[in-house]
Amino acid sequence: MVVYFDNSATTKPSQKVVEIMMKALTEYYGNPSSLHRMGLETEKLIRLSRKQVSKALGAKEQEIIFTSGGTEANNLSILGVIEALKRKGKSIITTKIEHLSVLNIYKYLEQKGFKVLYLDVDQYGRINMEQLKNSVTEETIMITIMHVNNEVGTIQPVEDIGDFIRDRASKPIFHVDAVQSFGKVHLRSSRIMADFISLSGHKIHGPKGIGALYIKKGQRIQPLVFGGNQETGLRSGTENVPGILGFGVAAEEITNDIDNRILKMRTLKESFVKMLKSEIGDIKINGSEGEGSSPHITNISFMGVMGEVLLHSLEQDNIFVSTGSACSSKKEAKSHVLKAMGMKDSEIESAIRFSFSHNNTIEEMNFTIDRLKKHVSELRKIRKR
Amino acid sequence: MVVYFDNSATTKPSQKVVEIMMKALTEYYGNPSSLHRMGLETEKLIRLSRKQVSKALGAKEQEIIFTSGGTEANNLSILGVIEALKRKGKSIITTKIEHLSVLNIYKYLEQKGFKVLYLDVDQYGRINMEQLKNSVTEETIMITIMHVNNEVGTIQPVEDIGDFIRDRASKPIFHVDAVQSFGKVHLRSSRIMADFISLSGHKIHGPKGIGALYIKKGQRIQPLVFGGNQETGLRSGTENVPGILGFGVAAEEITNDIDNRILKMRTLKESFVKMLKSEIGDIKINGSEGEGSSPHITNISFMGVMGEVLLHSLEQDNIFVSTGSACSSKKEAKSHVLKAMGMKDSEIESAIRFSFSHNNTIEEMNFTIDRLKKHVSELRKIRKR
Repeated sequence: MVVYFDNSATTKPSQKVVEIMMKALTEYYGNPSSLHRMGLETEKLIRLSRKQVSKALGAKEQEIIFTSGGTEANNLSILGVIEALKRKGKSIITTKIEHLSVLNIYKYLEQKGFKVLYLDVDQYGRINMEQLKNSVTEETIMITIMHVNNEVGTIQPVEDIGDFIRDRASKPIFHVDAVQSFGKVHLRSSRIMADFISLSGHKIHGPKGIGALYIKKGQRIQPLVFGGNQETGLRSGTENVPGILGFGVAAEEITNDIDNRILKMRTLKESFVKMLKSEIGDIKINGSEGEGSSPHITNISFMGVMGEVLLHSLEQDNIFVSTGSACSSKKEAKSHVLKAMGMKDSEIESAIRFSFSHNNTIEEMNFTIDRLKKHVSELRKIRKR
Repeated sequence: MVVYFDNSATTKPSQKVVEIMMKALTEYYGNPSSLHRMGLETEKLIRLSRKQVSKALGAKEQEIIFTSGGTEANNLSILGVIEALKRKGKSIITTKIEHLSVLNIYKYLEQKGFKVLYLDVDQYGRINMEQLKNSVTEETIMITIMHVNNEVGTIQPVEDIGDFIRDRASKPIFHVDAVQSFGKVHLRSSRIMADFISLSGHKIHGPKGIGALYIKKGQRIQPLVFGGNQETGLRSGTENVPGILGFGVAAEEITNDIDNRILKMRTLKESFVKMLKSEIGDIKINGSEGEGSSPHITNISFMGVMGEVLLHSLEQDNIFVSTGSACSSKKEAKSHVLKAMGMKDSEIESAIRFSFSHNNTIEEMNFTIDRLKKHVSELRKIRKR
């Protein structure tokens, strides 16, 4: 049995996604900018994908532009807005637990003279709305908040933030990084009132190399990449047709199946946590539980065990999990997210992230619990010697 | 019979490319940054692709970084160098016939205070080496030259430019846009002495959505996109594994087959032009002929016929060609390349680009000539009425 519990790092493309990509590679290989029929065909298919993605988000077709991934969507949103608004103010608000593709942009902007406030989070990874409200001034040009945190699954109150901004006289641009929430929780662009929303294909059983940025009607932005003016001039370069088509199909599958997926993932996760608590002693659940957390991520410290050692032990049984986020796992000594939550070093070192998909099964969960019991017990014994 | 003579716009992915991409989508879907085996597997495969691309270019593995396409490679090269060198000087040299993904970056940089010289070209689309030599000063920080022009196929003397720069005391950065020459002419990074070379996947029977930038060992550059520091920090974002693997295989196929491909394309193109000249009167070959032009592109004006009308007539026979470049065909009133070559409006309006692949056949050529004779004759009659 192969158990893939690392669905926050990346997901397996669905069969329908693979099928449409095959078609794009073998039949619909025309350049969408070509004047002839082979170009028009692929252009039409891109339009269908744009509809599929916008529908899954409750947005309008014209509000979606395709990028090379979630990281580029975050970069385009932040750098594109800042370039357009830099004369209006220099203050930016984000959180300490954003993904590196947000934090590293803001570090770069700090070097350029921008003032960035990184909001604290509590022990559950949740921001404090009062701190946010008290920090926004007329100088604040942008707020970037991650909807679901990729390491612990905590959901931020993006709807409340959207409401708060709407009621202000001077409105900062509101950017939501929804890479980990799209397809995992109910997400409607109209409900969260964001100006920009970043999405990624490979987190929703679509392909790697494709993402999208929702740009609310009326919002302006500067491109990052110049060229043939594809994507209404905001993202030049021959369109990644197979990637776009795959992303579209993955988004359509969300629209058709979101309630069932959420129920399946949450049931699995909650049973998993409950069983772990009863079967393995001395563990700590990091981040929110229940409705305040996404249905697909749980982060657990197995006290007295090194997370990385446990990861490799599970790997021997074909169970795949992660310690922190994939993007930073090889570079970051200790998770900035868990640190911001005030966790002790011993808790951080022993943390494992399990991230589920609707494709995972009870059998996989039971097998994993069985192996976890064995490995944790053995590793704790070795440690005590 | 379907005749695809629009291989400069994009190519059909080869069977082996499609196969490896299928494998990447269904088996090797791990995130290369994951610590477990599924991550390591994909990381190894990316490394193999990097070797395949570097070998096809005669470069070192560490000199290749993957981007989302040729457009991004051009943007990263130019904007990344300019950001790093802007204190050294403000002068840049390029040509009037570059691709829009170069011209539009330089237009943007002109707004930012940079001085850009656009070199003239002669009636064959070739730059004048003397003009180039006389224009370089100590203030010149960068030179961008397209190796093979995408609309007319003219080859620029990039080796001579490389030699000229090497012998200077103050050396501008030399950037070659090789998107249309990679896999079509012999191209060795060591021979052309460039500091940066832009490549694209979908022009060489690889997938759309992937490209690469060759960065000569020792050259420094600033990233355009910030995040998880993939691609040695120069191109963050989860790697487009299917795209990278497909690009690698397409590059390996170039290495194994380049001589045969060049011979096939050149033979086809020269027979095609020769037959057209004898079968259809009043045509004009735009750009160089013979060794000064790429083996795969020919641009021909059918005097008295509107190019776009002829394109759609051929389309009825399932023959696919283009007027200008795909990227600009819908937006640009008249090709900036043909204008720079001093062509008359009537010649520009009646131009058609035929671009070949090694997969095209004599039968396809004969069929196309037959249909061209019919359509050109009919369209000329209508015009004369």
